[in-house]
Amino acid sequence: MVLVRPRNPLNIGAAARAMSNFGVHRLRLVSPYAVAFREARSAVGASSILKSAEEFKTVAEAVADCSLVVGTTAVRNRALQHPLKRLSPGTGNAIRRRLKTGRVALLFGSEKIGLTNEDFSHCHWLLSISTQETHISMNLGQAVAVCLYELARGKPEKPAPNKVESATVGDAEQITGGLLDALSISDYLKPGTEAMFEKKTRRLILRLNLEAYDAKLLLGMVRQVVWKLRHPEKQ
Amino acid sequence: MVLVRPRNPLNIGAAARAMSNFGVHRLRLVSPYAVAFREARSAVGASSILKSAEEFKTVAEAVADCSLVVGTTAVRNRALQHPLKRLSPGTGNAIRRRLKTGRVALLFGSEKIGLTNEDFSHCHWLLSISTQETHISMNLGQAVAVCLYELARGKPEKPAPNKVESATVGDAEQITGGLLDALSISDYLKPGTEAMFEKKTRRLILRLNLEAYDAKLLLGMVRQVVWKLRHPEKQ
Repeated sequence: MVLVRPRNPLNIGAAARAMSNFGVHRLRLVSPYAVAFREARSAVGASSILKSAEEFKTVAEAVADCSLVVGTTAVRNRALQHPLKRLSPGTGNAIRRRLKTGRVALLFGSEKIGLTNEDFSHCHWLLSISTQETHISMNLGQAVAVCLYELARGKPEKPAPNKVESATVGDAEQITGGLLDALSISDYLKPGTEAMFEKKTRRLILRLNLEAYDAKLLLGMVRQVVWKLRHPEKQ
Repeated sequence: MVLVRPRNPLNIGAAARAMSNFGVHRLRLVSPYAVAFREARSAVGASSILKSAEEFKTVAEAVADCSLVVGTTAVRNRALQHPLKRLSPGTGNAIRRRLKTGRVALLFGSEKIGLTNEDFSHCHWLLSISTQETHISMNLGQAVAVCLYELARGKPEKPAPNKVESATVGDAEQITGGLLDALSISDYLKPGTEAMFEKKTRRLILRLNLEAYDAKLLLGMVRQVVWKLRHPEKQ
């Protein structure tokens, strides 16, 4: 459970409470409003979840060891670049299956503006709770509770017949970095488009849903190509 | 939605907010703590639901016009005289069916003690949200949100909103070819292993299950890198 830039101590506390209710233990915060985090932690009855919550500066660091990153959104007019799924028993199952082979990060944005496009670029796909068209914005603590209710539902599924280990987002980020180096040296990037292109490339690599083995293979390839691009004269 | 003896204005507000999110309009309060009700109503952004909320002295009066009354409970040691159901798509369906023929009241008790046996006696059956044994007590606003999410779950899931076109095997083969060129120029391939490596790379690219758009993007990248590897001197 990753809260990105939360500002209200009550919401941080409510998220932690829903986590205890539904048996989710690891809380991470990205750039929380410092006063809010302090207040939430020192509140009467603050749970061990809140006390052991970890703080990160960036989304990339907060999700680096996860193999699936799901961003939550209320979707209105944003032009989404990402696959969007509705919270349902089906999506709950999909996430539970991924939990068997790696860590899953569920991202919630700040109370006012939610997650940004930059945050989304670290996500494999987005999740939305079906609400009334006229009242799509849910309270943060309530949205967390509803998502965890759905994810905690039910008996575990049968294990997949052959488990393959998923690549972590940290692995994917290394490939993205290498690929961007190669493209930059190859003059593929036009000046001024680097930031946009970085997000585009990150999304591309995440969409591949790499297995750990393939990620290692690809990273080796990309690194060798980058090395050659930098040292064209060497054999 | 019937809140019985709520004491915290934030929880009353949160219940009303979840109701707007999930399209439930009629809020009734039984003996609310007067100050809390007043504060909730006068809060900035208080919804029309809150403004038109009705107040009753007893549960009996609050549910008099309903044809099904469901009490919510966290169940611990209470000896329950009532059928108890777990919140699930099945119970959601059961309640939705009843809504077609009459009004349904969903009762939530006070934050501290929940519903009493006296309150239960007005209920047809009881509903409970599955939580961790060690943390069964949910925040009122969050419990309301989770229940309404399940009850509002409408029609079976929509098909995925945006269908994406898959890459053809021909697209994949072009990427494989370009990648092999890049790796060969970069001295990644050891002499004598080319045929084995070609198969390995092809399988890798096929495993990615590329979408058509991503395949085109990747092919453009690979081609540019190959071009640069071949013409390191050109800008």
